[in-house]
Amino acid sequence: MVSNTKVIFAKVPTTYPEIGEHMIVQKDEIDLEAEIPQGSVLLKTLALSVDPYMRGRMRDASKQSYSPAFPIGQPMNGHTMTVVVKSNNEKFKVGDLVYGMSPFSEYALIPEQFAGYLEVRNEAKDSGIPITNYIGILGMPGMTAYVGLIKFGKPKKGETLYVSAASGAVGQLVGQIGKILGLHVVGSAGSDDKVAYLKEIGFDGAFNYKTTDNETAFKELCPNGIDIYFENVGGKMLEDVITHANKFARIVCCGMISQYNTQDPYPVRNLLQIVAKSLEIRGFIVSDSPEMQDDFRREVTQWIQEGKIKYRETVAEGIENTPQALIDVLRGNNFGKQVVKVAEFELQKKPHFS
Amino acid sequence: MVSNTKVIFAKVPTTYPEIGEHMIVQKDEIDLEAEIPQGSVLLKTLALSVDPYMRGRMRDASKQSYSPAFPIGQPMNGHTMTVVVKSNNEKFKVGDLVYGMSPFSEYALIPEQFAGYLEVRNEAKDSGIPITNYIGILGMPGMTAYVGLIKFGKPKKGETLYVSAASGAVGQLVGQIGKILGLHVVGSAGSDDKVAYLKEIGFDGAFNYKTTDNETAFKELCPNGIDIYFENVGGKMLEDVITHANKFARIVCCGMISQYNTQDPYPVRNLLQIVAKSLEIRGFIVSDSPEMQDDFRREVTQWIQEGKIKYRETVAEGIENTPQALIDVLRGNNFGKQVVKVAEFELQKKPHFS
Repeated sequence: MVSNTKVIFAKVPTTYPEIGEHMIVQKDEIDLEAEIPQGSVLLKTLALSVDPYMRGRMRDASKQSYSPAFPIGQPMNGHTMTVVVKSNNEKFKVGDLVYGMSPFSEYALIPEQFAGYLEVRNEAKDSGIPITNYIGILGMPGMTAYVGLIKFGKPKKGETLYVSAASGAVGQLVGQIGKILGLHVVGSAGSDDKVAYLKEIGFDGAFNYKTTDNETAFKELCPNGIDIYFENVGGKMLEDVITHANKFARIVCCGMISQYNTQDPYPVRNLLQIVAKSLEIRGFIVSDSPEMQDDFRREVTQWIQEGKIKYRETVAEGIENTPQALIDVLRGNNFGKQVVKVAEFELQKKPHFS
Repeated sequence: MVSNTKVIFAKVPTTYPEIGEHMIVQKDEIDLEAEIPQGSVLLKTLALSVDPYMRGRMRDASKQSYSPAFPIGQPMNGHTMTVVVKSNNEKFKVGDLVYGMSPFSEYALIPEQFAGYLEVRNEAKDSGIPITNYIGILGMPGMTAYVGLIKFGKPKKGETLYVSAASGAVGQLVGQIGKILGLHVVGSAGSDDKVAYLKEIGFDGAFNYKTTDNETAFKELCPNGIDIYFENVGGKMLEDVITHANKFARIVCCGMISQYNTQDPYPVRNLLQIVAKSLEIRGFIVSDSPEMQDDFRREVTQWIQEGKIKYRETVAEGIENTPQALIDVLRGNNFGKQVVKVAEFELQKKPHFS
């Protein structure tokens, strides 16, 4: 028997979730020698991704939404990079690197009906790109940036792109793709360090939304108005962008983190501007655009390898730090993409070559 | 000299405009025998269109918007059907019926630089369709319905379409095109008479928003949710539709009349649903879609002639009733498309055959 620590969803929060109340770390064990059912695969978790959208899954299961509610008393789950420890499924062999949705536990037995959604990504073994990047810039958040900006932002060279939560998992990539496409790129973030980082990775302008008001910032940094807004924040930020938007501006709604943990949503009063300026406001979920996945992986891998794109992560060490890592994301205390490293990949190479 | 009564924009209103204060009827005269400048055309107004968007033009000229502000002290203007009384422009001959933007006066001299925007529409002489229809269902409001529903609503057979202000100039056509395209069509209006009319012209469901709350109505009349919302109203109605919208719903924003005459816009609090449901909210101005004009005129003319579409108008008689007609539109006191009949066309045929 070996240790198999899990992160359990214990209770629906009304505002911010708390450790020990809504999320509980539970120490458990697993027998790695036991037989596994036909079609199943036993995974060891290497890295897991905590993302803002997970707050939406911490709801009462009776409420419908785009992503299923976490069942109470069960491990949370999300995007992971794992390595195959045991396989009774011909799609997987021991030592394969696997990307997909799996439980937040050190080991996870995936039954046949879910194994089909997992992807072998052995190219991560020799790409020179850190494994954690495969749940970030090369995973769901990266594809979110790519799909949102290109498919829904419909960028035209010379336009002004504004990105909120710009140093986050999605935002930093949106801005850098924007630069590659010839846009004037402006971002906001919640600390001077983050603002400095945005300028370092090529943003034309950046401001700290906690110390500079939006209107002042937009007048200075977006003198030609805003053509594309990559929306991660919602509330007053959305309202102020609408006021500063150009005719035909596209507002691509990826998330609205300011509205996730409140019982008192911000009241937006200027929606008449949607008519006056022919605005297009579009929410999207990355999983509805699978047709873009191949282009996304090819282009972004290449941009990383060519050094055209930088990517900052905050890595929490150990699965027991998952709840705090998620809370940090929801409160904006992380810097860059927040991931949790659960185990080293080196250790996992052995079965592959044995 | 003959009488030439004009409707003057006198002062910017803060809420609803009033007769005598913001709009003034001014009696004037014109010499129809006088020479007119090279390239110009002298029009006699037959019918003029008063529409909700005009409230947006009654603003301080320093504020930018999609449609130019009315200059203070000058005649208001808008879409008209007119007949050519005198022409010094080869595009027009005496007796031609003309559609376009012209001043709200009994006679108007249009200089060369604006005459280019006017269109000869002599087909109105023998189409069997009333001349007032050419500033309504066959004019800007009709094309607004057609472009909004088809281009931005992207209707798919079997979907649910909900139209607010559904008995109005635009709404009644939107709903009837929706039926032709195989949609489940529901509308709201502000009186039981209007609701009865909507059912009469083929709406599957209709409710009086003053006596039935939106949620109750949507549950009953849109049991499969709302896929397309043709937005004419804004405010709480928009908020309630967002709550009841299906995934991938399109909200086509044509106008938001509830927000035009208030200093205290309604605060919308559920925009997070844009992300949760991948909503598409799109404002539009009909003049940005000229590529659809030929299809629109051909199809809608045919639908009217085949009796597939009915069209209700409220006709105010006499140019001096223009201010009240516009106020009626803004307050929802009209029923169907509000037009002002300024002169009979019969009288105008004489020059043509003389």
